Amino acid sequence: MGELPPQVQNLAGQLQQVQQQLQLIISQKAQLEGLIKEAKDALDELQKSESDVAYRAVGNVLVKLKKEEIEKDLQEKIETYEVRRNMLERQEGKLRDRLTELQEKLRSALGVQAG
Amino acid sequence: MGELPPQVQNLAGQLQQVQQQLQLIISQKAQLEGLIKEAKDALDELQKSESDVAYRAVGNVLVKLKKEEIEKDLQEKIETYEVRRNMLERQEGKLRDRLTELQEKLRSALGVQAG
Amino acid sequence: MGELPPQVQNLAGQLQQVQQQLQLIISQKAQLEGLIKEAKDALDELQKSESDVAYRAVGNVLVKLKKEEIEKDLQEKIETYEVRRNMLERQEGKLRDRLTELQEKLRSALGVQAG
Amino acid sequence: MGELPPQVQNLAGQLQQVQQQLQLIISQKAQLEGLIKEAKDALDELQKSESDVAYRAVGNVLVKLKKEEIEKDLQEKIETYEVRRNMLERQEGKLRDRLTELQEKLRSALGVQAG
Repeated sequence: MGELPPQVQNLAGQLQQVQQQLQLIISQKAQLEGLIKEAKDALDELQKSESDVAYRAVGNVLVKLKKEEIEKDLQEKIETYEVRRNMLERQEGKLRDRLTELQEKLRSALGVQAG
Repeated sequence: MGELPPQVQNLAGQLQQVQQQLQLIISQKAQLEGLIKEAKDALDELQKSESDVAYRAVGNVLVKLKKEEIEKDLQEKIETYEVRRNMLERQEGKLRDRLTELQEKLRSALGVQAG
Repeated sequence: MGELPPQVQNLAGQLQQVQQQLQLIISQKAQLEGLIKEAKDALDELQKSESDVAYRAVGNVLVKLKKEEIEKDLQEKIETYEVRRNMLERQEGKLRDRLTELQEKLRSALGVQAG
Repeated sequence: MGELPPQVQNLAGQLQQVQQQLQLIISQKAQLEGLIKEAKDALDELQKSESDVAYRAVGNVLVKLKKEEIEKDLQEKIETYEVRRNMLERQEGKLRDRLTELQEKLRSALGVQAG
């Protein structure tokens, strides 16, 4: 890259950074979506049960709790996860815009150089 | 491989591709067979129990359900897995035939070249 | 090793093979001892319980069984594991003897060569 | 490093060793803190339950025990973990002091060499 003008090197560096940030956010979003799915699956399962109690595992201990208490906790968890997920989604959108912008700038800078 | 005639290179490339597809299918089949075994083991275990209820874990929540409901779900799961497993088995058979065919073509192409 | 006489190369090859077999057996033994410990821990835990039933997990299904049935299964498991563990221990002993023997032969072969 | 005086090489070697010991202790401390947190979470969970029994998992067996017995075991575990954690903390402190001391000695030794 020693041959490339500093402006192009600078744009390429920014582009790489934005791509790395984007990848991190995409993987964090996927993780949160996994947690949301798991909590929703647990809620669905609880609704199939006729019992008004269920167990919750913490480490190797299984504790009997009221079904409604577990449901409330799961709903709160889902809300918290969804807030975070939506925040990440907004960040992802901004990074994608920034990526497009940088790619255009880079193309144009390379065009100028080639011309 | 620059020394090999294009026909041989082409066959060798196809052979490699078929071997990779075969490996993927074998590993997917093994995974499904694991799932089928686990579901069948759970069914066996339920049949040993005198209780008409059992628990099912979703994440860290354990939900009390009717034994027959869990059994029905397990049977459906097994059927779905077996359909997919059988599809993979047919694909595996076809790929093994294709592998033999390519190996023969390659042997014959190499024989012609050596002669 | 091209400089070493064939007899020494042969002994070194056998030594390496025996060492690999020994390592495999040691790791299989450690695995079995882990399983034996886990089953014994479960037996101990069952003996602390005042209930005459307990649950056993198969995949994500938890099945209620008589305590004595689970205890019987655990005892059988432990016996099976211990038989296998003892077999491995005998194999380990033989391999250790073979290792010592090969090391002595190798030392003596190298001594002859050096002299 | 062949150009460096033996005293500097010696200090650099000691420094590296202390850094490795420090890293090991930090990771052991983090592991213990994870175990302490898990046991405390289980205690909290048990306090939310209205039942006077709970289950404890050993391998795939879930055993019904008195809540107070599980609580007592958890409290003992926490105490044991905390004693070990505090020991590691003291060792960490000593190693950090030793690290600072070695860094100063190394700086001064390199200063002498440069002067």
